[in-house]
Amino acid sequence: MDARELLYEGKAKKVYKTDDPQQLLVSYKDDATAFNGLKKGSIQGKGSVNNRMTNFLMQKLEQQGIPTHFVRQLSDTDTLVKRVSIVPLEVIVRNIAAGSLSKRLGLPEGTPLQQTVLEYCYKDDALGDPMVNEYHIAAMGWASDEEMRTIADYALRINDFLCSHLKGVNVDLIDFKLEFGRLPDGTIILADEISPDTCRFWDSTTHEKLDKDRFRRDMGGVEGAYQEMMKRLLGA
Amino acid sequence: MDARELLYEGKAKKVYKTDDPQQLLVSYKDDATAFNGLKKGSIQGKGSVNNRMTNFLMQKLEQQGIPTHFVRQLSDTDTLVKRVSIVPLEVIVRNIAAGSLSKRLGLPEGTPLQQTVLEYCYKDDALGDPMVNEYHIAAMGWASDEEMRTIADYALRINDFLCSHLKGVNVDLIDFKLEFGRLPDGTIILADEISPDTCRFWDSTTHEKLDKDRFRRDMGGVEGAYQEMMKRLLGA
Repeated sequence: MDARELLYEGKAKKVYKTDDPQQLLVSYKDDATAFNGLKKGSIQGKGSVNNRMTNFLMQKLEQQGIPTHFVRQLSDTDTLVKRVSIVPLEVIVRNIAAGSLSKRLGLPEGTPLQQTVLEYCYKDDALGDPMVNEYHIAAMGWASDEEMRTIADYALRINDFLCSHLKGVNVDLIDFKLEFGRLPDGTIILADEISPDTCRFWDSTTHEKLDKDRFRRDMGGVEGAYQEMMKRLLGA
Repeated sequence: MDARELLYEGKAKKVYKTDDPQQLLVSYKDDATAFNGLKKGSIQGKGSVNNRMTNFLMQKLEQQGIPTHFVRQLSDTDTLVKRVSIVPLEVIVRNIAAGSLSKRLGLPEGTPLQQTVLEYCYKDDALGDPMVNEYHIAAMGWASDEEMRTIADYALRINDFLCSHLKGVNVDLIDFKLEFGRLPDGTIILADEISPDTCRFWDSTTHEKLDKDRFRRDMGGVEGAYQEMMKRLLGA
């Protein structure tokens, strides 16, 4: 695996080809960006936290019957995953108003939502990842109606599992972002990551933010928050 | 009806109480605004065109089994309607990409959509009428799931009827906005208007715009476009 070919470099991960055309190597970086790349920085140890937390949670989700792209962790920052054709949507799951939803609907951050809210954004940096709905998705051919039913079902089940698991370590799951992909046979599986980069985690008691908002909003204590979430979830 | 009490003045209509608490008088104005009120002007004869076209189309829709708020036309600009509690959503129906959808998805205006697209915007000027989806609507309690199924069904049936009717007068229905309300017994009915203010009408042959975009975009020929649509639809 030494002479590996870089397939794609994203904001927080590099993706390499492997000898197996059905598998890729994902390497998590410490690089951090926000506001569609306008803000750039680095969070020491982030790559390791995000890699290990994602793998831990994806293995738990597999046990819950949610198929994921996880194959095998190779090192603190590197993981072997199944190659998928990505569904070009960010699937956002919200339990409590924060971030863009608070702005859009004029709801103070921390307002509980009466029902879980799913949002879909079309992954396109040039367009600013615009919010879309099931009709746009069908009209543009980004996913079939059946695939969207599977994705919505998985997203809500993942939310149920994560909320309950995090409650056990005194963390509220405010909202999070998921991405899904298709295997060659069309099976929809969870891809990407589940980490403080992609979730809003608040301490249940103090409401202290334990996620990337500390970086986005220059709150300080960024590295400490990532390590704290790691410690609570994995005990190390 | 002379000593009538003004209940509400909107951008394009005034609404008055009547002797019957279940009915309101709507008076269409020539005033025109665009871009959430940033652009203001007047379109001579617009009140009359929009009132008469709306009433003509709502009566046709009633014949198709779509309940509407129309009761009786009182004059060229005034109409008696059923009083409703408004569902605070703009329901946008799109057949061909234009306007905000073209901007959001980077689609050239005039691109046909593979399927009809419905969008919902929360009616709130201060928030800029943000786009929302069924999950937001349920979580905020703006309408029940059953009401939204009725609204989506009506919107698509209204689109089918209007497209076919307009095709007969050589006009393509690019997109349009609907609003719905609830009668005291909870029945969902079509409210508001169907006019060149709320629809994009393009001549099928020349693609000439016959709607409010002529005002929004300073294209000239605004009054003529409203009169032309009136002539094609009502023959006068």
